[in-house]
Order: sequence, then structure tokens, then C-alpha cells
Amino acid sequence: MEPRELTIEGRNAVIEALRAGTPIDKLFILDGCQDGPVATIRREAKKRDVYVKYVSKDRLDRMSETGRHQGVIAYGASYEYSTVEDILNKAREKDEAPFVVLLDGIEDPHNLGAIIRTADQAGAHGVIIPKDRAVGLTAAVARASAGALSYTPVARVTNLGQCIEDLKKEGLWFVCADMDGDLMYDLDLTGPIGLVVGSEGDGVGRLVRSRCDYVASIPMKGNIDSLNASVAAGILAYEIVRQRFSLSE
Amino acid sequence: MEPRELTIEGRNAVIEALRAGTPIDKLFILDGCQDGPVATIRREAKKRDVYVKYVSKDRLDRMSETGRHQGVIAYGASYEYSTVEDILNKAREKDEAPFVVLLDGIEDPHNLGAIIRTADQAGAHGVIIPKDRAVGLTAAVARASAGALSYTPVARVTNLGQCIEDLKKEGLWFVCADMDGDLMYDLDLTGPIGLVVGSEGDGVGRLVRSRCDYVASIPMKGNIDSLNASVAAGILAYEIVRQRFSLSE
Repeated sequence: MEPRELTIEGRNAVIEALRAGTPIDKLFILDGCQDGPVATIRREAKKRDVYVKYVSKDRLDRMSETGRHQGVIAYGASYEYSTVEDILNKAREKDEAPFVVLLDGIEDPHNLGAIIRTADQAGAHGVIIPKDRAVGLTAAVARASAGALSYTPVARVTNLGQCIEDLKKEGLWFVCADMDGDLMYDLDLTGPIGLVVGSEGDGVGRLVRSRCDYVASIPMKGNIDSLNASVAAGILAYEIVRQRFSLSE
Repeated sequence: MEPRELTIEGRNAVIEALRAGTPIDKLFILDGCQDGPVATIRREAKKRDVYVKYVSKDRLDRMSETGRHQGVIAYGASYEYSTVEDILNKAREKDEAPFVVLLDGIEDPHNLGAIIRTADQAGAHGVIIPKDRAVGLTAAVARASAGALSYTPVARVTNLGQCIEDLKKEGLWFVCADMDGDLMYDLDLTGPIGLVVGSEGDGVGRLVRSRCDYVASIPMKGNIDSLNASVAAGILAYEIVRQRFSLSE
């Protein structure tokens, strides 16, 4: 999943890109430029938390590929989705048992980004997200992943339950996280595994849960009823790492 | 740490409270009211991600304690800091070895809230943050803690290094997280313990690190160089939970 750099030049093109939610890494605006369209661009950029840099006309002229920047150039990065097959291939290339993280409806881009980052560090071969009711690979997700999005394949599937069935045929076992499951330390989480993490509010959906082989719980000693979704994903992913680690010692 | 409810009534009072960063849980505005000061309040509320509800004059009249709401009532919650002594007392009351989470300069309110939530669930007795260069207990932190802030004491200290020295006299050992430390699985993390987690960008500061007894590392198999701060705190806190758990079995 290499980010494809793209340069967007000119006021309307940049406004459209911002409004369309195109992932923008950096926005360059002519220093001192205050007119209406530029004000609109600054407002839209602020809404989307896009990094803005004010530069000289000389600098913009040098950066411009078209010569018609009108005082505004945006550097975008569009992240491409991988396929489930890409993820399995990554495991094969490394000659490792597949380790995949499936997310059932994560809506917060910070959580998705943090989970992609965790998946990378935990040695997972990829992340699978559903097409519906979930955040996709936006610029905010890329930023929260701190670069991990460039290394960790993310596949998007129409039906997460069907995807689990397909991956079972490849030999994977599935564990989902829920409070009423077995204590995660007591489960065997080695071998080819899919870790299913639920959404911030609702946890793992009933249909997806019913297809999982194990339900694992994180011990909860507190007064509230759950952990942040990306923290829970991290704790479970690293229990898998710990068990794989002990095995290889 | 009970949140103290407070009601703020009237336009100027609410504008001032918003601008001062007073944690506001909910803002009630007279439905249809569009004038300048109310527009300012709406703009400031939006900036701070405050939940706004539009209600009738009857409702505001019933809610008002002063009878002079001018179409605007805010419900604030100011979270009070605990002391380090409160945290130690909580461990004593439960007859448990103290387990404290110390944060060296967390600046992101989502991370601080998520860590307070994790501390609650992991059975830590409290969280200690420095007064300088760190986010305090704002409304965004309270929200990200998902209620845990009402149960987990958070103390704020001037000098984190000195606080560590003081707690060592109470029998605590300190472990901080860093990439070049010993693998966390190989360290004995049982007993009275302080877990020190560094800031998002810089990790644990040199002076604080030098006072720690152990440096623990999370195994990193990825291409980037770190985890999200709240995820790293969660993984380490739960390695402590796991070791305590094995001990009590």
C-alpha cells in the first residue's frame, strides 16, 4: 500500500478536493493572500485539520507542475486498499502463520489509525475493515497511524462474516473480544489467527461474533464497562504476540 | 474525585467560561435565538466540541437558578485533582500493593482520557501527571475517559522526578517504557509499582528515566518506531495485570 502522491493546483481544484474528503498531506498557500476563495480554502482546511504552510510566490512557482497554481497547491496522498489475498500473501512471504486484525465498525479515525499502527508493531499481516458503517482510509487515519499505513495492508470487504468463513478455509481461527468471554490468558492464541475487535459503542456484532471460534475477555477491574477500542485491540494483539513469543523461545 | 456540577447562566458568564476552557458538559440555548452574543457562544461551543441543545423559554426558566439566564445556561463539571496521598490511601483501603501510572508529558486529551480509562480497568490506584507541559483534566479528557475520571484519582505534581523519589520511600519500584529496555515479559513487574509512560513525541524524559529502576520494552516487529501513547500504556499496564494475576492463581 504505497501512498500515491498527487499534486492538486488551483483554487477550485483544491476546494473540491477538500470538500470531497481527498486525503491532503500539506497545503501551500501564497503568503498574504486573503481573498474569498482562499478564505474558503483556509476554512475547509481547518475543518479537516489539514496542515497549512504559507509560502512565497517564488516557492509556489517552483513547486507548480502546471504553472497555474493561483496561489494554492495541495499535496495529497490517496491510500489504496489491499485485498485479503495480499494480506495472506504477506504472511506466506514471511513464512509465518497468518495474523490478521478484523475491525467490526470502528468509526473514529484516531482509533483506526492507532490500530493500524498497533497491527504493524505486533507483526500482524494486515487489517480488514467493512465497507459499511466504518471509517475508511482518510487523511486523519493516515496521520494517526504515524506512517504504519504505508506498511500495513488494509483490505475492505462487503461482508465481514463471509470474510471470516473464507479465511477459516485458509486455516485461520477467530477470536473476538467481549466482556463475557474466557480470560484471554487461558486461551491458546497461537497459530493462524484472526483477531476481531468491535466498534466503540456496540462491540462486536452478533452475526460476526457467532462465527468466531473463541470469545476472549480482558480482565476488567474497574468501575466503567469497557476500554478504548484501540487500547483493547492493543492489549489483545499483544497477548497474541506474547503467546507466539513464548512458543518461539 | 467527584465532578462538581456547576450551572453557569447568562451570556457573558457562558462566553467567559467557554473562553477560559471551563469544562462544559452541556449547553442549553433558547431555540431560535440568533443574535450576536448567542452566535459567539455557538461558535465558541463548536470550537470546543461542546454539546449544544436548543430548548424552549419555559424549559430554561425552569432550569434557571438565578432567573437571569438571558437564553443561555451551561452545565459545567470541574474535575478536582486528588493528591498522591489519596492514591496511596486507595491502595491501603483495598489492601493491595500500590499500582500507580505516571505520565511524563501527555499532551493529547484523547490519550490522557484513554489512559485514565485503562488505569481504572487495570486496577491501578491512580494516575499522576506533571503540572507543566501536559494536558490537565479538561472536558475532552473527561469525555475520552468514558466516566473513569469519576473513579480514578488523578494527582498533579510539580516535579515528577521528586514524586518518584518520594514514592520509592513508600516501597514502590518504577518501570518506564522505552524501546531499548528489557523485554517486558522478562521483568518482574509484581509488587508495589509505578509505571511511567512518556509523551507522544519524546517518550520519557532523561531525568525521569534515570530515576526508574527498570526500563521495559514492548516487542516491536513493525516498520515504524513506536505505538500510540495510550496503546503503549495499555499494553504495559496489562502486562503488570497479567503478572499480578499469575501470582494470585
